[in-house]
Amino acid sequence: MTHSIAVFGAAGYAGALSARLLQRHPSFALKTVTARSDVGRRLDELYPHHRVGLELEELDLDRHAGVEAAIVAYPHGAAAELVADLVQRGVRVVDLSADFRLRDPEVYAEWYRPHPEPDLLPGAVYGLPERYREQIAGAEIVANPGCYPTATLLALAPLARAGLIGDVVVDAKSGVSGAGRAATDKTHFVTVDENVSAYGIPRHRHTPEIEQELAALGNEIRITFAAHLLPLDQGELVSCYVTPAGTDSGDLQALYREMYEHEPFVELTEQPPGVRDVRETNICRISVHRDDRTGRVLVFAVIDNLWKGAASQAVQNLNLMFGLPEGEGIS
Amino acid sequence: MTHSIAVFGAAGYAGALSARLLQRHPSFALKTVTARSDVGRRLDELYPHHRVGLELEELDLDRHAGVEAAIVAYPHGAAAELVADLVQRGVRVVDLSADFRLRDPEVYAEWYRPHPEPDLLPGAVYGLPERYREQIAGAEIVANPGCYPTATLLALAPLARAGLIGDVVVDAKSGVSGAGRAATDKTHFVTVDENVSAYGIPRHRHTPEIEQELAALGNEIRITFAAHLLPLDQGELVSCYVTPAGTDSGDLQALYREMYEHEPFVELTEQPPGVRDVRETNICRISVHRDDRTGRVLVFAVIDNLWKGAASQAVQNLNLMFGLPEGEGIS
Amino acid sequence: MTHSIAVFGAAGYAGALSARLLQRHPSFALKTVTARSDVGRRLDELYPHHRVGLELEELDLDRHAGVEAAIVAYPHGAAAELVADLVQRGVRVVDLSADFRLRDPEVYAEWYRPHPEPDLLPGAVYGLPERYREQIAGAEIVANPGCYPTATLLALAPLARAGLIGDVVVDAKSGVSGAGRAATDKTHFVTVDENVSAYGIPRHRHTPEIEQELAALGNEIRITFAAHLLPLDQGELVSCYVTPAGTDSGDLQALYREMYEHEPFVELTEQPPGVRDVRETNICRISVHRDDRTGRVLVFAVIDNLWKGAASQAVQNLNLMFGLPEGEGIS
Amino acid sequence: MTHSIAVFGAAGYAGALSARLLQRHPSFALKTVTARSDVGRRLDELYPHHRVGLELEELDLDRHAGVEAAIVAYPHGAAAELVADLVQRGVRVVDLSADFRLRDPEVYAEWYRPHPEPDLLPGAVYGLPERYREQIAGAEIVANPGCYPTATLLALAPLARAGLIGDVVVDAKSGVSGAGRAATDKTHFVTVDENVSAYGIPRHRHTPEIEQELAALGNEIRITFAAHLLPLDQGELVSCYVTPAGTDSGDLQALYREMYEHEPFVELTEQPPGVRDVRETNICRISVHRDDRTGRVLVFAVIDNLWKGAASQAVQNLNLMFGLPEGEGIS
Repeated sequence: MTHSIAVFGAAGYAGALSARLLQRHPSFALKTVTARSDVGRRLDELYPHHRVGLELEELDLDRHAGVEAAIVAYPHGAAAELVADLVQRGVRVVDLSADFRLRDPEVYAEWYRPHPEPDLLPGAVYGLPERYREQIAGAEIVANPGCYPTATLLALAPLARAGLIGDVVVDAKSGVSGAGRAATDKTHFVTVDENVSAYGIPRHRHTPEIEQELAALGNEIRITFAAHLLPLDQGELVSCYVTPAGTDSGDLQALYREMYEHEPFVELTEQPPGVRDVRETNICRISVHRDDRTGRVLVFAVIDNLWKGAASQAVQNLNLMFGLPEGEGIS
Repeated sequence: MTHSIAVFGAAGYAGALSARLLQRHPSFALKTVTARSDVGRRLDELYPHHRVGLELEELDLDRHAGVEAAIVAYPHGAAAELVADLVQRGVRVVDLSADFRLRDPEVYAEWYRPHPEPDLLPGAVYGLPERYREQIAGAEIVANPGCYPTATLLALAPLARAGLIGDVVVDAKSGVSGAGRAATDKTHFVTVDENVSAYGIPRHRHTPEIEQELAALGNEIRITFAAHLLPLDQGELVSCYVTPAGTDSGDLQALYREMYEHEPFVELTEQPPGVRDVRETNICRISVHRDDRTGRVLVFAVIDNLWKGAASQAVQNLNLMFGLPEGEGIS
Repeated sequence: MTHSIAVFGAAGYAGALSARLLQRHPSFALKTVTARSDVGRRLDELYPHHRVGLELEELDLDRHAGVEAAIVAYPHGAAAELVADLVQRGVRVVDLSADFRLRDPEVYAEWYRPHPEPDLLPGAVYGLPERYREQIAGAEIVANPGCYPTATLLALAPLARAGLIGDVVVDAKSGVSGAGRAATDKTHFVTVDENVSAYGIPRHRHTPEIEQELAALGNEIRITFAAHLLPLDQGELVSCYVTPAGTDSGDLQALYREMYEHEPFVELTEQPPGVRDVRETNICRISVHRDDRTGRVLVFAVIDNLWKGAASQAVQNLNLMFGLPEGEGIS
Repeated sequence: MTHSIAVFGAAGYAGALSARLLQRHPSFALKTVTARSDVGRRLDELYPHHRVGLELEELDLDRHAGVEAAIVAYPHGAAAELVADLVQRGVRVVDLSADFRLRDPEVYAEWYRPHPEPDLLPGAVYGLPERYREQIAGAEIVANPGCYPTATLLALAPLARAGLIGDVVVDAKSGVSGAGRAATDKTHFVTVDENVSAYGIPRHRHTPEIEQELAALGNEIRITFAAHLLPLDQGELVSCYVTPAGTDSGDLQALYREMYEHEPFVELTEQPPGVRDVRETNICRISVHRDDRTGRVLVFAVIDNLWKGAASQAVQNLNLMFGLPEGEGIS
């Protein structure tokens, strides 16, 4: 039996990849793809390498009746209303935007704008499967984590759960696909090529999401987060510099092995991992190191920002929501 | 009147660029280029874009008599002996290696190996012109700073001089030319392309050099330094995350303006700078930011690792040593 | 039932990818991977992203008894002897080298060196499935085409079969993985980045292979072939400039549709295709155009040089040899 | 004595680089920079690495009175009218657009649109200094060649002057800066990165310009020209495949040496040149080869499309127009 799924907002990078993964998924049937631009064009015209031969349609929830679940790939702010409509129609949602990630509407308001659908927040689950597997299974709304929070939280969770983080600097580095499909000065090849710079300094919107989830793990701190744009397409590295809370942070490798040895999509490495090693996979690779001179703990984590950082994690969540093997269609 | 200069070790990236800059310099005459490999080949065969039509010779100090100064571009450890020979012959030296950067031979021994010429250390000057302009003018041996220390020290000097650094994490990002000309797995295009990873974790040899100079500015601390390799050719960005020593770090912009407003090769920017903005220049661009949420100070600095991080800074030092305008031949 | 397969020469790019494809193939069991270098290292250490956890072994045909077929990924010249040994033991072979591609040992001698195993040539089949599907099914030795010939022959076959090629210039452009894993000056990131140049001028070894197969299609000509190295990883574009044999080359689009509309791995496009569109696939994309001003016919074809140009085409051939669905494990 | 120069259309890549070269030119004074977009912004905000601290002004020829010459960097079609206005005011012009390159207004109309200022065509000189040095010196309007024609004509001129070209295919490859500053799907980093494809097939507008100048050299032919976009910033390679007009094309190397040995900005190489070798220079590098198997002559030429292909060639032309050393400010 297959489940009927829609992707709303399939003209962007994450939505289009979601459509590709769903179309080849053995247990899901991709029923429709909609877009706010490019309506009437076929998806494989925009993204030949995805080979999804569906036409982008205008959003029309009446016509899309019958879908059991949807991936919503709308911009922050624009997603909430559509998600509300879907929930009312009984459609389960994985939302790629930030709209349902922050539990506290006041924090959302501080970093974005007043929340358009605050009543739905209590029913949303933060979609990091390695952390909320069981809650995701029963959720109506799954708030897919941002790409940076995905990598950062997987990097820091073992330390945070043990309350070991006194302070942390997260230096994040992303390929250009993370900036989205919009053609701007910032995404022009000539701007990015042979270049690197920080952006969104000093306040990046992924910060509160990371702090919320570290606190939920028992480690309530304020973090320093800085993002950088690199001349590559897909891939993301977070370099985390942790000042331990106490003097003895114990056997770090054991701490990480304990949390991750049975996780299908987390790999621990001895050497700092490279983003090529996880390109076009749902995998996060992590290495942890102690700097004996300073006592600091260094953690490096890499993901593919469009896969584990967006689309394949969304499918991983859908798998959980429908009681399917967690890695189906994304391994 | 022109001064006769030699470049020893001109087959590598930094040596070859030094040769190019000297050959077009109005006050210097490039008398000879030597190499340990590729002897007998013309430099413009190895580096067509430098257009230096000299043949690489074997080292033979007797034949090179008459040079007034030399740039030595040998590997760490191999440089010291040659520098000693040159000094004995009265040739002034700018040494691109690490051999004369650390004042304390025990620190050198800890990070490299026992120092081969410890008696020469007291006579060497650390070749960061923005800091030691006057001492460089009279020096016999100028120890050209490493590329990472150049950017990091320029980024942190205003804070260090004011004693404001309580703790600092330096996340450094470099293009591949920083790894040198040797063809290895690590410099293969297919390894680097669409990739990024940390390396030299957790002990990078540029660390003690940075700590030494921060201490000399009055800020004695241990730093956390981590280097990353990026898929680009020339360019280096250091992202510095400073925990201030006190609660009030004052007017940061004024602090930086005060130190740098008359510096010909330092530019302050409001937005985090990109490495493209300084490509093939002797310029360092710096931006400083305060994160009000955490109290942390963020400083970003970019240089071209082969220019200000090596060859053009060497020429800047030579200019100072011969009483020439500091920017001659490198502006 | 699965068939037991070996990959000999799995430390190189094409061999390693072959191992990855075979390991996940539903009807093949990857029994062993050997290498001439790196023996004792695990393949996933060299190629983390392939995730093949086998150790590279020394070649020892006695120990590898029981394999039904092998992919041989040895250099030109070195492959022939191993292939001969395998054939004698009844192992069917897909050979990635050039050693069995040229039917005439004198042509081989002219472009390479005297052929070490000329007696085996008559039994070898040229492994372009779109052309020799049936012969491949029964072959003992399948000579997997070179990457350039694969793209060029697919681009030109419809014209050649109709005898329409009077003359042709093939301007081929390849990513760096085509140059292999050896770290040299030519594959150093700094050499390739922001660069493009022709190489192997004026005689590239893929030329006779293309001429042989065009002649076999009925179009006996001498071609001009020039290869270029591009700053990208995987991907290859051949731009073919055909001077038609007669004055009327007819309905080109129909000619191509007729040959390719049922081919699972050939896609015809209206616009000139890009290599990104076929990255990590077994697909060749082709567009054909007539320049009315000059009468010339332009054909552009793209493949992934490591996939359709090597490893996935080898698996496609193995599928044919074992009577499996042609696209199994590579779609 | 310095000459007062304006750059009209300085917000684009070629105009901005022209401004940079003029500002540092010893004999020119850059009086004003105008733009159609970005008026009021400083040029060094848009292009930090050019370090031209002038504000982009609105076009106002009355205010710009006093300039002796101008570089016009307007789009095709938009330039002609401005050039006409300037000529009427006695301002000499180097026009970077195609508007004055084609001598025959009917050819212009066929490839662009009806020519807006046909009366000015007879007074315009085609600005390829290696070919029209003397005419440029006295010209009112110099039509700066397109980037592809510059490289192609320098590659083919020795053959064309000897009437040796029977037929030619030009396969041209350009970096992304050739597509201009406009942010579009086609210039988005994610579109270009790890990609290559042909464009403008089968009719590229640079074709008639090349044919006109080959005819002027005595070789009247129709050429096949195809352009390709590469994942690099600046640089252009043209690969020319010449079918000789007769059976004996003689000593090719001598032919090229004879034409170019005294040219300051043309370098002949034995091996096919790479674009890196001419990056940020006014130099064209050329290699010529005979393929004995087919009798074809292969010529490869590289330039920097923004320098010799646009801005530095414009300055070279200005130098000629004002009787200055031809290489002043661009060597």
